[in-house]
Amino acid sequence: MTSRLQNLRASFETHKIDAMIVSRDVNIRYLTGFPASESWLMVTAKKAYYVTDFRYVLEAKKGLPRGVELVQYKTSLGEAVFDLAKKSRIKRLGFESSHISFDQFQSLSRIIPKSIEFLPKKGLIEQFRMIKDSGEIALMRQALKIHFEALKRLKRWVKPGVTEMDVLFKLEDFVRSQNAGFSFAPIIASGPNGALPHAHPSRRVIKNHEPVLVDTGIDWKGYKSDLTRMFFLGRMPALVQEMNDWVKEAQSLAVAAIKPGAKAAEIDRVARGFLAKHKLDQYFGHSLGHGVGLDIHEEPRLSGKSAATLQAGMVVTVEPAVYLPGKFGIRLEEMVLVTEKGCEVLSEHYH
Amino acid sequence: MTSRLQNLRASFETHKIDAMIVSRDVNIRYLTGFPASESWLMVTAKKAYYVTDFRYVLEAKKGLPRGVELVQYKTSLGEAVFDLAKKSRIKRLGFESSHISFDQFQSLSRIIPKSIEFLPKKGLIEQFRMIKDSGEIALMRQALKIHFEALKRLKRWVKPGVTEMDVLFKLEDFVRSQNAGFSFAPIIASGPNGALPHAHPSRRVIKNHEPVLVDTGIDWKGYKSDLTRMFFLGRMPALVQEMNDWVKEAQSLAVAAIKPGAKAAEIDRVARGFLAKHKLDQYFGHSLGHGVGLDIHEEPRLSGKSAATLQAGMVVTVEPAVYLPGKFGIRLEEMVLVTEKGCEVLSEHYH
Repeated sequence: MTSRLQNLRASFETHKIDAMIVSRDVNIRYLTGFPASESWLMVTAKKAYYVTDFRYVLEAKKGLPRGVELVQYKTSLGEAVFDLAKKSRIKRLGFESSHISFDQFQSLSRIIPKSIEFLPKKGLIEQFRMIKDSGEIALMRQALKIHFEALKRLKRWVKPGVTEMDVLFKLEDFVRSQNAGFSFAPIIASGPNGALPHAHPSRRVIKNHEPVLVDTGIDWKGYKSDLTRMFFLGRMPALVQEMNDWVKEAQSLAVAAIKPGAKAAEIDRVARGFLAKHKLDQYFGHSLGHGVGLDIHEEPRLSGKSAATLQAGMVVTVEPAVYLPGKFGIRLEEMVLVTEKGCEVLSEHYH
Repeated sequence: MTSRLQNLRASFETHKIDAMIVSRDVNIRYLTGFPASESWLMVTAKKAYYVTDFRYVLEAKKGLPRGVELVQYKTSLGEAVFDLAKKSRIKRLGFESSHISFDQFQSLSRIIPKSIEFLPKKGLIEQFRMIKDSGEIALMRQALKIHFEALKRLKRWVKPGVTEMDVLFKLEDFVRSQNAGFSFAPIIASGPNGALPHAHPSRRVIKNHEPVLVDTGIDWKGYKSDLTRMFFLGRMPALVQEMNDWVKEAQSLAVAAIKPGAKAAEIDRVARGFLAKHKLDQYFGHSLGHGVGLDIHEEPRLSGKSAATLQAGMVVTVEPAVYLPGKFGIRLEEMVLVTEKGCEVLSEHYH
């Protein structure tokens, strides 16, 4: 954790700041290891202050690492932080402009000491978070291991005659038994429900001869897995089989293109272009994938609009899909680690 | 729902706007009944537009009420909404300034047509949400009914020899069996853990002769309950009994002061002043209570800093507490409906 704070400090010169306020919980967790809540972290060249109120002081005292000082505020977070900044002779103070509301910014502007410049910094900590260190990758592998155990069981649970919710409840019990959590509310979408990219598990009874889309993720100590698997029950209509083949091919082509230096937008184009050849791109309305780590959706995005370049240590999902409204949906999702030489499909054997 | 949109429209003149962008999910849900996600609602004098993307179109088509038009955007929410605003000849467009980030505001400022003024409006919909209608109160009563069933069972489950997590798992199973959800992650804090106002259920084994604090809430169709109950196992040390009596007395005094026209800050002062007489205010570090409804914490706050005046139809928690670090905590929390003549403790018989 100390090295993460050091990396942030080392970037101060580039960003022309001499301290940074971190207001986003998950970024505070990344920097300190402590699961923050309604608190801010101020990082200066030499120190780090965790500013919180009465309710969280006891937990923070136990949970904060060495090198992070605990400060309890009385009136407001803003006043306490500006007070500390003034005492630390900070002149240029960065803030997380994507994680402070317009109102908060207005209020803070009114009370900031004149000696301090308050500078919007967008995605500064998120930039560091894109590149996972070995400890983070180990946690994600552990999340995937538990995920795999769940998938083995899902093969038995997903069957004709049970409802999507029945499957959900079994999955919940299993995840709990592993002392793990979910990355997000699981999607268990049978038949036509699979055509809704974000379907909620329903009381629909799963039927024979239909596809079931299961998109779920395990949270292990804050790190997430995210995989989509298709379960084909009984005989599949030829159209389902055909769509599955095209989506699989699109995925393979995209994965083959992942390596350090490749443009994220290009990976999206590889999959989308292939589907377009078969006139299926109109049924694939979302981007190809996203970074995953402490957040289930984080940078970089594998999207046509992304300006990101892939680097070793990034972990992204690759999830091409075809949704046929009223009929069914096919989505296949793997997690891919960008390596020095190319990439590793972390979830390759987890089928 | 239509009347909620009408109420909002009727406030346009006061707020000097001719349309409002609603970006906060729960506010969109309040206005339309539809559980929104990554979408905006624009309300004009005559129309309402729900602007979303590919992923949510099918659900929205089914779920949106009459009088709300579905618009699918292609490039960005902002562009689509400004385009609609321009076509609707909007001159003064309000936005939810507490629910748009500094970055979002900057981006929107760059693309807004010159003919439109973009005006920050803070807590506009939240003001309406403070006063619950009969349908909302009925949903909260239903949440409390399920909550009560859970409390009856908790009396058996909370016992020496089991862990806090054991109790949590039983509670989770029960809530699921009722097709309900939680308002927030339950707090089950035994012995010294009760001194942490936001403790997480742990593997600590509950012992005899100690108090256990259980703060939980049921979510029923979006509406929340929120109650804290103390479970006293075996013989209680005199200090526990004494603290419980003081907290109970503080709560009774506060509830007795709740009526339309009373100041929220004054209710907080009643409880805090009583605890101060017994030199216990230093152990009561949070505010006395908060509004509850579609959000677990909403306006009005029963806090010394609140400027709110109570009105019939508000529902607030009253939760005085005493936390003795390292020893135990006592918190007692009821839900109170402000009525025309005074108040009704909605959870009075739920012990």
